[in-house]
Amino acid sequence: MSKPDALTALGEMLGDRLSRSKSDLDLHGRNETYFPFLPPDAVAYPETTDEVAQIVRICAAHGVPLIGWGRGTSLEGHALALQGGVTIDFSRMNRVLKVNSEDMDVVVQPGLTREDLNRELRATGLFFPVDPGANASLGGMASTRASGTTAVRYGTMRDNVLALEVVLPDGRVIRTGTRARKSSAGYDLTGLFVGSEGTLGLITELTLRLHGQPEAISAAVCAFDEIGAAVDTVIQTIQLGIPMARIEFVDAATAAAFNAYASADMPEKPHLMVEFHGSAAGVAEQTESFGEVVAENGGEGFKWSSRPEDRNALWTMRHNAYYACLGLRPGATALVTDMCVPISRLAEAVEETRADIAQASIPGPILGHVGDGNFHAILLVEPDNAAELAEAKALAHRMVERALRMGGTVTGEHGIGMGKLDYMEEEHGAAWDVMGQIKRALDPMTLMNPGKMVRAN
Amino acid sequence: MSKPDALTALGEMLGDRLSRSKSDLDLHGRNETYFPFLPPDAVAYPETTDEVAQIVRICAAHGVPLIGWGRGTSLEGHALALQGGVTIDFSRMNRVLKVNSEDMDVVVQPGLTREDLNRELRATGLFFPVDPGANASLGGMASTRASGTTAVRYGTMRDNVLALEVVLPDGRVIRTGTRARKSSAGYDLTGLFVGSEGTLGLITELTLRLHGQPEAISAAVCAFDEIGAAVDTVIQTIQLGIPMARIEFVDAATAAAFNAYASADMPEKPHLMVEFHGSAAGVAEQTESFGEVVAENGGEGFKWSSRPEDRNALWTMRHNAYYACLGLRPGATALVTDMCVPISRLAEAVEETRADIAQASIPGPILGHVGDGNFHAILLVEPDNAAELAEAKALAHRMVERALRMGGTVTGEHGIGMGKLDYMEEEHGAAWDVMGQIKRALDPMTLMNPGKMVRAN
Ligand SMILES: Cc1cc2nc3c(=O)[nH]c(=O)nc-3n(C[C@H](O)[C@H](O)[C@H](O)COP(=O)(O)OP(=O)(O)OC[C@H]3O[C@@H](n4cnc5c(N)ncnc54)[C@H](O)[C@@H]3O)c2cc1C
Ligand SMILES: Cc1cc2nc3c(=O)[nH]c(=O)nc-3n(C[C@H](O)[C@H](O)[C@H](O)COP(=O)(O)OP(=O)(O)OC[C@H]3O[C@@H](n4cnc5c(N)ncnc54)[C@H](O)[C@@H]3O)c2cc1C
Repeated sequence: MSKPDALTALGEMLGDRLSRSKSDLDLHGRNETYFPFLPPDAVAYPETTDEVAQIVRICAAHGVPLIGWGRGTSLEGHALALQGGVTIDFSRMNRVLKVNSEDMDVVVQPGLTREDLNRELRATGLFFPVDPGANASLGGMASTRASGTTAVRYGTMRDNVLALEVVLPDGRVIRTGTRARKSSAGYDLTGLFVGSEGTLGLITELTLRLHGQPEAISAAVCAFDEIGAAVDTVIQTIQLGIPMARIEFVDAATAAAFNAYASADMPEKPHLMVEFHGSAAGVAEQTESFGEVVAENGGEGFKWSSRPEDRNALWTMRHNAYYACLGLRPGATALVTDMCVPISRLAEAVEETRADIAQASIPGPILGHVGDGNFHAILLVEPDNAAELAEAKALAHRMVERALRMGGTVTGEHGIGMGKLDYMEEEHGAAWDVMGQIKRALDPMTLMNPGKMVRAN
Repeated sequence: MSKPDALTALGEMLGDRLSRSKSDLDLHGRNETYFPFLPPDAVAYPETTDEVAQIVRICAAHGVPLIGWGRGTSLEGHALALQGGVTIDFSRMNRVLKVNSEDMDVVVQPGLTREDLNRELRATGLFFPVDPGANASLGGMASTRASGTTAVRYGTMRDNVLALEVVLPDGRVIRTGTRARKSSAGYDLTGLFVGSEGTLGLITELTLRLHGQPEAISAAVCAFDEIGAAVDTVIQTIQLGIPMARIEFVDAATAAAFNAYASADMPEKPHLMVEFHGSAAGVAEQTESFGEVVAENGGEGFKWSSRPEDRNALWTMRHNAYYACLGLRPGATALVTDMCVPISRLAEAVEETRADIAQASIPGPILGHVGDGNFHAILLVEPDNAAELAEAKALAHRMVERALRMGGTVTGEHGIGMGKLDYMEEEHGAAWDVMGQIKRALDPMTLMNPGKMVRAN
């Protein structure tokens, strides 16, 4: 049992697809936010499920940790090699294996990105809706139970993964789920692996639900004087049953960031960005009903775009919000929060957070997928400024407490990684121990992404 | 460790809410279909979570099996006391605890039935959509991952349970999930308990998603000359993205059963029964588009009902289909099959099944939730006629093989119980062992509904 022996065996098996180069270790030791540099001992680039299973068996025989890697866009240091080991980079397993148009599903490899998938689907009249902004991999998205702007209509990865192929910590390969739309055949293992952040097994294949490209699409932005009015608009829209495809909130600071980063000309006020999908008549009806709600809440400056290029520009701007916000403070890094509450508490949650950040010495634009009750503050800190990081963490801590106090969750979509581990007990109580029991049953040696998700030991 | 000691302790705790009366044991040893009489040693009627936890601790201390019981309507002998023990009947835990109208969710006890829930919700403008026909309990429905006529639009119990309270096999009480609409905080334990058929713990509270009562509803029945034309209509409707709230298939034999049982006047042909929900304009658009698809496929005798009483009569008739079919052969009992396939294989699956049953000596009307690719044959056998039961089982076996061959599942909604255990390995392969690992981790003494769901030993 030794790490060097494992690396030798892996090298023999993979040739130059096992990398120990500085640039590879650097790349896989970095993260998108404020976590420290934590590189693995090596990076493996498998091309088949069989190779993944072999890698896992070799690492298991030598007690070497295994960390999955999709695109490294996760925000809580999920894929950092806390205890070293081998990072499995899925970038060479990035093919669409089969599009089943009639059944509206697709079989893909885990390293495929959502943008590449949708590019391949364009001619089929179908699309994959889950949309975390970043061009993440589908295996990574399944592993963090990702969602994004369209979850309010199309659901999260929980709702859009039909079946998986998984390599378990002992090298067994299993298939969970089928291509049938529903099943009552036993424990929902698909659901168990979705959101497990690579701590129970490595996903080597996914079967995903697809949706029909809508006949008509219409998008709009409108401004409000007060956050409360924007959020009330969201709540009323939901309660009226208007089926928004997207309904996003950005605060005044984020609007300012857009103006600077994307040369937008938004008033520096809170905004909603919405999109409707449906038949031409349906979209017309929805936009009209929504317009009424906006007007009642004092919204203004309504801009509709039904031209694809305008809509693309709008959502590209939204998807770059993180980088736009980083641009507000050149050289800064960010702590990105992710609270999610029942919709009735959303206005209060956003207002309290806004007020709290207003007292702080650091900027923190707020934006979010408010149709799900989910929003983020992007807390901008100077790298290596311990006082600022402490201040950001204190703000984030109060957001977490607020989420739990309001009956919500500490993370709506980003996941646990390193950043939220300390909140698992508070959110789940004894249920956290049940997660530990499951982890120990499937991964008794703690080989898979060790130090994450469950209680230590 | 003895069963008599456990029963004494439970009797002291529960008084006459621990029953060993013949009528109670009889009731809880029976099932809706063809499985033998398998009574428990006693039936407990707890009133609080605390009592459930105490019962579990007493039974655990004495190694006595525990079987949950909602309304006993499951179709695969799920709640039968294979190894005796104590049946926990949740009928006294049947309250609505809290309606959160703004958040469109509700907190309920497990013994509440879906009809009682919807009665209590009527004035709120909200409803709970999952609809297995039978007036099942919500705890039972969660435990079997039930669905029904509306799953095509509103999803199954998997999609509509937000959070649970569960008493584990060692008496610990946990809460899974929150009232937030989505979360990435750890393993999806809610999803793990949904569909676990009482083998991992007892559900003592559920938080359920609600939906707005639609502004407009319209329902219709129409007849087809051939099964294939009816099923093609379903496939095309789905591919056009017409958002049906219900789309049900019944074959000629079922139509005949309706005529006899519910004094209907349906031609003895295959039929589709559909319902649309939405705004007035939306429903009008959907019905028109659907009408076009029906006409293209040669459907006829279109009857629309937008009056609530006509719609109620229609769906009551559909919900009584099982009893109507039993009426086709007075004195018969039934084996109810439950295959579910990708929609592209549905026509083939129904036709093959129809042809197979046509060769058999027993009747087997076919009907199903075809929008999900899910259908049932109700195989009618004389009680105690071993040859007929063997013939029914052989037909059912071939349906299961067909489902798996076509990339589907052996049970779309009814679950495993006693009837499908022998197919778990075939459907899941090595993943079935993973279910066993989870079971052993949470219930090492195999106290919860023993003999079900996982491999014996
Ligand atoms: C600008 C920006 C915006 C974002 N917006 C959103 C958003 O709106 N919603 C949202 O949900 N997220 C968002 N994110 C976060 C991120 O995109 C998601 O968490 C995404 O799911 C990560 O995918 P990835 O491929 O980058 O995974 P990685 O970061 O590579 O890995 C994530 C986790 O999954 C594991 N993993 C990866 N692949 C596998 C596999 N095949 N098998 C098993 N485990 C695996 C890793 O070990 C790690 O624990 C955003 C990120 C950025 C940078
Ligand atoms: C006429 C008819 C039509 C039907 N149509 C459908 C249909 O369309 N779709 C469908 O899905 N089903 C259908 N069913 C089957 C049945 O209604 C469902 O399986 C339902 O979910 C069972 O609920 P129940 O309350 O009767 O549960 P039970 O039969 O009492 O129990 C079912 C299982 O759940 C366990 N259980 C019950 N309560 C709890 C609890 N609180 N905690 C833990 N475990 C518990 C039991 O031990 C058992 O294993 C139909 C049945 C009939 C008779």
